[in-house]
Amino acid sequence: MTKNIAIIGCGAIGYEIAKSIDDRNIPNCRVCVLFDTEREQLDYLESDLTNKPDAMFDRFDDFITSDIFSKIDFVVEAASIEAARRYSIKLLQEGKDMMIMSTGSFSDPTFSKEILNLIHNGGRRVYLPSGAIGGADILRAVKGYIDEVILTTTKSVNSIKGAPYFLKRGQNADSIFDKTTIFEGSAEEAIKEFPSNINVSALVSLAGIGFQDTRVRVVVDPLIETNRHEIAVKWKYGEFYIKINNRPSPSNPKTSYLAVLSAIECLRSALVNDIQIGS
Amino acid sequence: MTKNIAIIGCGAIGYEIAKSIDDRNIPNCRVCVLFDTEREQLDYLESDLTNKPDAMFDRFDDFITSDIFSKIDFVVEAASIEAARRYSIKLLQEGKDMMIMSTGSFSDPTFSKEILNLIHNGGRRVYLPSGAIGGADILRAVKGYIDEVILTTTKSVNSIKGAPYFLKRGQNADSIFDKTTIFEGSAEEAIKEFPSNINVSALVSLAGIGFQDTRVRVVVDPLIETNRHEIAVKWKYGEFYIKINNRPSPSNPKTSYLAVLSAIECLRSALVNDIQIGS
Repeated sequence: MTKNIAIIGCGAIGYEIAKSIDDRNIPNCRVCVLFDTEREQLDYLESDLTNKPDAMFDRFDDFITSDIFSKIDFVVEAASIEAARRYSIKLLQEGKDMMIMSTGSFSDPTFSKEILNLIHNGGRRVYLPSGAIGGADILRAVKGYIDEVILTTTKSVNSIKGAPYFLKRGQNADSIFDKTTIFEGSAEEAIKEFPSNINVSALVSLAGIGFQDTRVRVVVDPLIETNRHEIAVKWKYGEFYIKINNRPSPSNPKTSYLAVLSAIECLRSALVNDIQIGS
Repeated sequence: MTKNIAIIGCGAIGYEIAKSIDDRNIPNCRVCVLFDTEREQLDYLESDLTNKPDAMFDRFDDFITSDIFSKIDFVVEAASIEAARRYSIKLLQEGKDMMIMSTGSFSDPTFSKEILNLIHNGGRRVYLPSGAIGGADILRAVKGYIDEVILTTTKSVNSIKGAPYFLKRGQNADSIFDKTTIFEGSAEEAIKEFPSNINVSALVSLAGIGFQDTRVRVVVDPLIETNRHEIAVKWKYGEFYIKINNRPSPSNPKTSYLAVLSAIECLRSALVNDIQIGS
């Protein structure tokens, strides 16, 4: 049975997911609805799809009160933390299962609790992709025995400038000429100072020991050309270290292509019954 | 609704999983049946459980023809590759979903194909835990774009001696005094020479690019006190490296405790609807 997918957010990642479904990389599903508050995004994506969606909406209320809403089997949020927080609860309450790309939305404990309630008591299913990192399996496995989790993100001057961290301090990232650790603190603090890194910090926190106990370091390296994430974990019966260098998506220099592929794989495993590899 | 679990294999890992269920670490399930060909293993585990199982079997045919068989909701294989190959297909044909710990069983393409058929056409669910490693999420995400996967396993003399590799060559692991790479080849070759490492090689192969293309290195280090696995991957839009040092399970020096925790987390995510973290 073909599953009808609605995509919330038709920016770079929403575009790639829709195209991937359109190219039949994920069996037995189709893009049924596109939603984005910007009409141009909708039109641009629709024009690139071979199999046209049944409907497009730029107002959320129009979408959920439409006739087509009841046909939707699964919703992909690929918009923003604000959109995830604004729309997810309503969609889950209406009986839709979801993949939420903006994992940073779970840094709000009230939102987190409401979503968990809809899963545990409402029977809904919610999937969070690993995004620009990996190792959610091992973090989840050892989470009860962890002594320390340190996430180190190394960014170029260009990819970090404009962060609230610099604005608050009246500093300029362009004045960093040597590799420098500019921040060390909890994931909770880090996501306020560096919101562009929020999804990675959130995923490590959610899979492991939470936003308060996960340590985050932010390093600026004027010579680096990729985005680099390192996860170092000490736990009771061992330790592990994960280092990931990501090059950008060919269609969007601001997104690691791994984040796109991870979303597609997450969606595939949510929709297709296949051998489930990795705890 | 409480789910009735049957555990196939009551050695070190089966014991830990049963105890974990018994301690209510996994909600809404209970140990209903224990199966092991050795009576002492059954009696030993049963005596340590607070909530006694409904039945124990030391002959598989007795188990599947018993009245209780129809009550089983989920089967955990924690026995051996041979047991996984011998029993899984029958159990899946009879409508049981399974977690298969002995991922090495999938190195047999005929077995693999039959299992996939029962998943795709029979609607069964089969879960493979990440075992003594992690990163199945990122391997699965990038699998279509991988240039190279190298798994390096470093073992002490004690944990590798007796491997077919040494017997075949008339060599003795005890004569290795310096850190030495003793093997480089495909995962397919590696699992013949070093069967004790088969589950790790198999999981990396299954999540990634298969048994023929996954490269495996085996290093003997007389000074190492843990088991170490390193996974180095180059792919089209980046690369990643995962290094895992594992200390043994407190109850069994031959098993990494991570493999136990990974199985428990895999079982939990198979049985309990919770937020699904990591693609």
